[in-house]
Amino acid sequence: MAKGHGSAKRGIPPKDDFNAWYPAIVEIADLVDKRYPIKGMDVWKPYGWSAMGNIDSIVRNEMSMSDHDEYNFPLLVPHELLEKENKLVQRLKMAREKGVDPSELRLDEEVEGFEKEVYWVRHAGEHKLDVPMFLRPTSETPMYTMFSLWIRSHADLPLKTFQIVNTFRYETKQTRSFIRVREIHFFEAHTAHADQSGADAQIDEDSGIVKRLLHELCLPAIICKRPVWDTFPGAWYTNAVDAIMPNGRTLQIASYHHYRDQWAKAFDITYEDSDGNQQHCHQTTFGMSERLLGAVVGVHGDDAGLIMPPSIAPIQAVVMPVASHLDEAVEPEARQIVQRLKAAGIRARLDDRDMRPGAKHYDWEIKGVPIRVEIGPRDLSNGTFVSTMRTGGKESYPLIDLELYVRKGLDDVSAELRSRSSALLESKMRVLDALPDDPKVLDDGIVYEVAFDGNDADAERLEKSTNLTLLGDDLHPYDEEVPCIATGKMTTRRQYLARMY
Amino acid sequence: MAKGHGSAKRGIPPKDDFNAWYPAIVEIADLVDKRYPIKGMDVWKPYGWSAMGNIDSIVRNEMSMSDHDEYNFPLLVPHELLEKENKLVQRLKMAREKGVDPSELRLDEEVEGFEKEVYWVRHAGEHKLDVPMFLRPTSETPMYTMFSLWIRSHADLPLKTFQIVNTFRYETKQTRSFIRVREIHFFEAHTAHADQSGADAQIDEDSGIVKRLLHELCLPAIICKRPVWDTFPGAWYTNAVDAIMPNGRTLQIASYHHYRDQWAKAFDITYEDSDGNQQHCHQTTFGMSERLLGAVVGVHGDDAGLIMPPSIAPIQAVVMPVASHLDEAVEPEARQIVQRLKAAGIRARLDDRDMRPGAKHYDWEIKGVPIRVEIGPRDLSNGTFVSTMRTGGKESYPLIDLELYVRKGLDDVSAELRSRSSALLESKMRVLDALPDDPKVLDDGIVYEVAFDGNDADAERLEKSTNLTLLGDDLHPYDEEVPCIATGKMTTRRQYLARMY
Repeated sequence: MAKGHGSAKRGIPPKDDFNAWYPAIVEIADLVDKRYPIKGMDVWKPYGWSAMGNIDSIVRNEMSMSDHDEYNFPLLVPHELLEKENKLVQRLKMAREKGVDPSELRLDEEVEGFEKEVYWVRHAGEHKLDVPMFLRPTSETPMYTMFSLWIRSHADLPLKTFQIVNTFRYETKQTRSFIRVREIHFFEAHTAHADQSGADAQIDEDSGIVKRLLHELCLPAIICKRPVWDTFPGAWYTNAVDAIMPNGRTLQIASYHHYRDQWAKAFDITYEDSDGNQQHCHQTTFGMSERLLGAVVGVHGDDAGLIMPPSIAPIQAVVMPVASHLDEAVEPEARQIVQRLKAAGIRARLDDRDMRPGAKHYDWEIKGVPIRVEIGPRDLSNGTFVSTMRTGGKESYPLIDLELYVRKGLDDVSAELRSRSSALLESKMRVLDALPDDPKVLDDGIVYEVAFDGNDADAERLEKSTNLTLLGDDLHPYDEEVPCIATGKMTTRRQYLARMY
Repeated sequence: MAKGHGSAKRGIPPKDDFNAWYPAIVEIADLVDKRYPIKGMDVWKPYGWSAMGNIDSIVRNEMSMSDHDEYNFPLLVPHELLEKENKLVQRLKMAREKGVDPSELRLDEEVEGFEKEVYWVRHAGEHKLDVPMFLRPTSETPMYTMFSLWIRSHADLPLKTFQIVNTFRYETKQTRSFIRVREIHFFEAHTAHADQSGADAQIDEDSGIVKRLLHELCLPAIICKRPVWDTFPGAWYTNAVDAIMPNGRTLQIASYHHYRDQWAKAFDITYEDSDGNQQHCHQTTFGMSERLLGAVVGVHGDDAGLIMPPSIAPIQAVVMPVASHLDEAVEPEARQIVQRLKAAGIRARLDDRDMRPGAKHYDWEIKGVPIRVEIGPRDLSNGTFVSTMRTGGKESYPLIDLELYVRKGLDDVSAELRSRSSALLESKMRVLDALPDDPKVLDDGIVYEVAFDGNDADAERLEKSTNLTLLGDDLHPYDEEVPCIATGKMTTRRQYLARMY
């Protein structure tokens, strides 16, 4: 290798060593700085924040198209509001254990909920606060407190809200940028409907939004209905979206929950129907976070650095004048190219730094800019430019059709990323049709597909014998019945086992 | 008044009673909901959040044009970082008292800073944290801790950063939506430069940004250099921007600070200059908040509700089909109008609710939508539409020139708001040329302009005899010398006295 070239210069570990590559690349590509003196709370650098902002923009646009309104709720939640939530969770747990309808149970004693995961604010200035508060880990409690004030009649429904905010979780596990952090950049949509069918339709809408977003991020994923014991507290059921990282571990990047009227009963969210009767609302939530960026980084990158999907790339095309000392018209032409690309709605940037082209190339490779546009004296006289794709491939095109070919190049990069990530996903999945005697006979870093229709005890046995976790039911079951891996009885339930982040 | 009409229906107090009008209108116009169970922490409703988002967009665009990069720092700050800041503040205070250069003083004892104003996080889950943390009231401490890692050489300068985040202050005073809250939607820019002249130039740039922003918000304001005792901790000087509210109280809506190298010395922010010597950076900061929206609400509104400056109006034009039962082509035409306006970059919305036109008018008046576009059967046959401005005036225009006339209407509303708010500002300001014997002889709700060049004791006497606060020096002094109100000596220093929020 020529000196100074090669990713080794920047200290990027090979991607095969994913557990070393990932934490290195997030800093080398200048997405975050992990040296902030609190574990699990990174500083977002401009490049990372801009990519995240582009993801947020796609999400905001989806919210706008589906008539969700953007709110912003306070970060702090009074402790006393948690009681309702805790009682709800406790009631559902007891109901499940006793096999009765949850609404038949009344709980009056104080119960313990997710206090263990929150940061507490009990002091301000020199005072001890009368009411302790905590930093929201998610916003059911503060939002539904207000929903019960806002919803009066069927004319107020559906209520479709979302917010994009910082949330907090006191993580005791090892932290990882974007994947497991203590301050989380979080998206949450919360809706209330007149009846279950309204909430059902919302779940369908959420499903469509997730699929379009995954398409934009060039990320394939497994979409499952989580097992009952992994359902979000208070939910009737939880659908979750898992990306598969290159090490074969799954990363939950989105989830959407059907609450039926459980939360509405806990928070007294009622409306007067057209007959004048009070009814409880049916609710859903939909959550995503900076993990979306973590999946993008982990799935698409390579030995040379990041590869940004064009839809969220902070810079979609970097423009470089080459050998401009040989012809002083080169740099003005490069500026003109940037202006033309911007006018065409492409996020373009000029790199006119006084550096060797090779050094510049490596910079933009690390950052994963999808298209590099170069123009030199020879291109100038030929009326051409050279376009290089971060995913490979380099070609000369007529300058007159600049916008067209750069746009096409971006589409090609997206298509290539989709193809690569689908191949990655397939390579990490395998069918398992018999319980192994020992988990060690299973290959490491593989997500196993199983036909499974057993009870809780069967599931425990299944997880134990594979040393993996059940992700839940694929929303697309088998077309024909096959024998359950644990019980042997015939079933169409297609489930997955994986090591989860 | 026809029944159901008039602002009384909505419970809007007359604007003359500003202290009743303001807290009522922020909720009636659906900007916020104050019923969240923590004092001083409101829920942002979509209409308010959208207006604030439009202000943020203007600010982000200014930041982009002036080459500032957007970061996002953690909310929590370890207590130990505060020590440096406290020592800096203590050192500057002592230096001022002793009349010596601050850098000559060394402080080793622990000193008290602004701990009194912060929310503390000392517990997480069931654990007491080893290192107590607090919620940022502003971000000098966390940011400069990182600046000292990022800045190595003169090539790293200038470093121009900003973020838009939630900050927290433990307010003991009475809270008011947007004006005095405990969770603050905050903008802060922080820059580092090689020398004082670099920071000087930044202050000039900030001044230009503030002036353009005030123009967009149709807000005139007083721009002052604050007295030394009102200078931001650690700053060499502070320039502050004060709007005058209708009750005559001033509201500080922006401030920008020149730090020289005081903070850099406290946080070891140094760079190697071209001669290989280590130098301390010179720094500036620039802060604004949701108070900008508070000023917009307070200054522009009237008895009927808000008046949104077109630059930030969530809805710039509301389109209403009128008497559409008389001609079924009316509603499709109204939809067409909305599409045309959107295509022209105007934030337009259709109001096709099945309600009396009068009731709709009042709704949009309360929300302060700048332009109302109406189309009925007669307009349809004439090829016209009717445009009504929220500031008054109603006219019929040819439909073929829709975009042109709506754009012109928005410009006219902006011009009218600027004219009204300048007149308001002038009506609230008066020259004071002699110290009153008793503050009671002064008119309430007036900002007084004074020639003042006295010392701290004179300032104290001046404030006592007027029962007002010195805002500081107008950046434009008098052209000719006039006698100081306190000492009688000749001066060009033009200062202001006011009751501040």
